[in-house]
Amino acid sequence: MKLYDWHMAPNPRRLHMFLHEKNIKVDLVEVGGPDLKLLPDYKALYPHAMVPMLELDDGTHIGEVVAICRFFDELNPDMPLFGKGTKERAQITMWENRANEEGMLAASELFRNTHPAFADRGLPGAHVAIPQLAELCIRAKARLDRFFAKLEAQLSENRFVAGSQFSMADITAFCAIEFAKWSEVVPPEEHTDLHRWYRGINQRPSAKA
Amino acid sequence: MKLYDWHMAPNPRRLHMFLHEKNIKVDLVEVGGPDLKLLPDYKALYPHAMVPMLELDDGTHIGEVVAICRFFDELNPDMPLFGKGTKERAQITMWENRANEEGMLAASELFRNTHPAFADRGLPGAHVAIPQLAELCIRAKARLDRFFAKLEAQLSENRFVAGSQFSMADITAFCAIEFAKWSEVVPPEEHTDLHRWYRGINQRPSAKA
Repeated sequence: MKLYDWHMAPNPRRLHMFLHEKNIKVDLVEVGGPDLKLLPDYKALYPHAMVPMLELDDGTHIGEVVAICRFFDELNPDMPLFGKGTKERAQITMWENRANEEGMLAASELFRNTHPAFADRGLPGAHVAIPQLAELCIRAKARLDRFFAKLEAQLSENRFVAGSQFSMADITAFCAIEFAKWSEVVPPEEHTDLHRWYRGINQRPSAKA
Repeated sequence: MKLYDWHMAPNPRRLHMFLHEKNIKVDLVEVGGPDLKLLPDYKALYPHAMVPMLELDDGTHIGEVVAICRFFDELNPDMPLFGKGTKERAQITMWENRANEEGMLAASELFRNTHPAFADRGLPGAHVAIPQLAELCIRAKARLDRFFAKLEAQLSENRFVAGSQFSMADITAFCAIEFAKWSEVVPPEEHTDLHRWYRGINQRPSAKA
């Protein structure tokens, strides 16, 4: 197996945290170029042009970070990061999906529509020019504010994002906050439960993976 | 258990197709109002203000359609719609996620930023006014074109979206195409394998559920 990686990018970071928590080692192939673009050879190999991507020994390509994480979680059932039992798994899936759609995607929208290196790359995985939309940034910031408020409400009643156990939902929520920082957006100080949780996650060795 | 539903909406449709395929019956509570808005009582009960949402007998709320579908797939393991075996499940998760992010979310972006009934509701689940962005529609159409091209490439080599078996990935991809139609966007005629697949899915009784 080989994992095609752009080590600094936000979705690979979700996977690296996951793998570190599970103590799984995979051979990595770095495909991010010095110009903040994916290497052309990688885009030819995997036209979806996104990272991370896992190549199995039979040549099968598994993309989409959540699919790769679930794959490894099944193969390594100790300390499942998608939960134990049907109800807990549903709550983790719900919060992981929410953290992705309302956190990661909003942070991505903000970053890609402002950073000069992403001019004409307003969307991930595109092979044609997608102009940046300055207006979209206002909306993306509103989405992030709402995401932070949801996390605060949840974390005022729960130790972790999906309940009492650390899970994939914490990883995705944490990486979304880290990604938002790239655009200088941070959760408000008054979200004290969010910050208590954030400090705890940030101290885990996997946060540096 | 009770399922809060807005029967005509795209994400509930994914769930209804899934439940019909699995022959699962759940008590439904309709929460869509005549003004194309969620009923205020529902928004008070579930401030995420999205549908569908499953309320368990202990009062737990499970939102996010993919979490609800996985919950029922686990409880009813006959004919699993998220796959058998680790590799097949990874491929289904990958394509289901892709169909959601590149299909459903693009169709949603297009519809919400054009339809007059959604003025000031440019994002789902918002409690504040989110103005429509006309410029975003051009990008959303480009996203849908790319999604259709990906489906065509995949379906030229596979009977179903994630391979040889019907799965949740077919349901999400089909519902994304149906949702795009609301904005009068349809896959190009030359995508013959996509249309062959579409006709097959459209003939399943679940497509009318």
